[in-house]
Amino acid sequence: MTKVIAGASMSLDGFIAGPDETGFEHLFRWLGAGDVEVPTANPGHTLRMSAVDAEYLRDQWDNTGAIVVGRRLFDLTGGWGGAHPIGRPVVVVTHEAPTGWEDTPFTFVTDGVTSAIERAKALAGDRWVGVNGGTMARQCLEAGLLDTIGVDLVPVVFGKGVPLFGELANAPVLLGAPEVVVGSGVTHLRYDVLR
Amino acid sequence: MTKVIAGASMSLDGFIAGPDETGFEHLFRWLGAGDVEVPTANPGHTLRMSAVDAEYLRDQWDNTGAIVVGRRLFDLTGGWGGAHPIGRPVVVVTHEAPTGWEDTPFTFVTDGVTSAIERAKALAGDRWVGVNGGTMARQCLEAGLLDTIGVDLVPVVFGKGVPLFGELANAPVLLGAPEVVVGSGVTHLRYDVLR
Repeated sequence: MTKVIAGASMSLDGFIAGPDETGFEHLFRWLGAGDVEVPTANPGHTLRMSAVDAEYLRDQWDNTGAIVVGRRLFDLTGGWGGAHPIGRPVVVVTHEAPTGWEDTPFTFVTDGVTSAIERAKALAGDRWVGVNGGTMARQCLEAGLLDTIGVDLVPVVFGKGVPLFGELANAPVLLGAPEVVVGSGVTHLRYDVLR
Repeated sequence: MTKVIAGASMSLDGFIAGPDETGFEHLFRWLGAGDVEVPTANPGHTLRMSAVDAEYLRDQWDNTGAIVVGRRLFDLTGGWGGAHPIGRPVVVVTHEAPTGWEDTPFTFVTDGVTSAIERAKALAGDRWVGVNGGTMARQCLEAGLLDTIGVDLVPVVFGKGVPLFGELANAPVLLGAPEVVVGSGVTHLRYDVLR
């Protein structure tokens, strides 16, 4: 059965970006800190990481059938130049669909995150739905739509910045025992959300 | 050589207490979630946890020679009824020393955290100095006094609360690769602070 997983690289103190959109060179360092090549859907962009991290990431990408993101992340990345790095369809939650994105891997949903998750599940088939971005992750968690939280915990302390979830209407949220994979410059933790 | 280590049980999103001093039943659940008894310095208070967690905690306690805390934690716990659970001398950073605590394991330092760490190092001998409480941990980290951060990462999301460090004058702080011990209801992570 498909499941919905929110994932992010996160500082030890819980931030997915430092103050004023800084700190990504620390958060994403592990994606370029080794010798094992992991190609992305963009031919000009290959990641290079440790063997353990590459195996973990490939497994996660193979298992993911569709992605849900918010409009902000879509705009920030310019629609990833036309294809998300993992090469799967992307559902974008937005107030208004942009033009010029017909016949692309991008679908725009204007009636909220629950609808977006449903659309993504249909696209994902038996695979997982990945949720990217703190606001989307929070909305999914609050709506009871999230099955799993995957955190790539990075050895840096930011002190402040953009939190993974931020304030939650339904806190505290209890999680199960994590799957732990010790990488190079990162510790991968995957928790099921308890209900 | 002695080292200075700040330690805390922390939620996945970086809080050492939930909003309004709540959530301790989640943060400290692992200390009572198993069958292996770990006696404390208080004869009436024995912890019971998994074998892996007990081994980790005993090792940490054996290695610790003195503790530094702030006045707030000292007052909150009522001076732990006269003895800190790990049975080591405690240096309390305060503006004014209370009376009635002569000839106890508690020393009061009124000239700041650097002085408190020096005093604790003298008490600890070859063992570690443990720093408890978010404000003390932050002050030590900002003053360059902290060698290691030990986080007991608990599978709960609070959304808001008391952060481990909070805003830092010297952020971002880079850490080394962690020592990882997978416990029961907790993941122990110990990082060296890079300088």
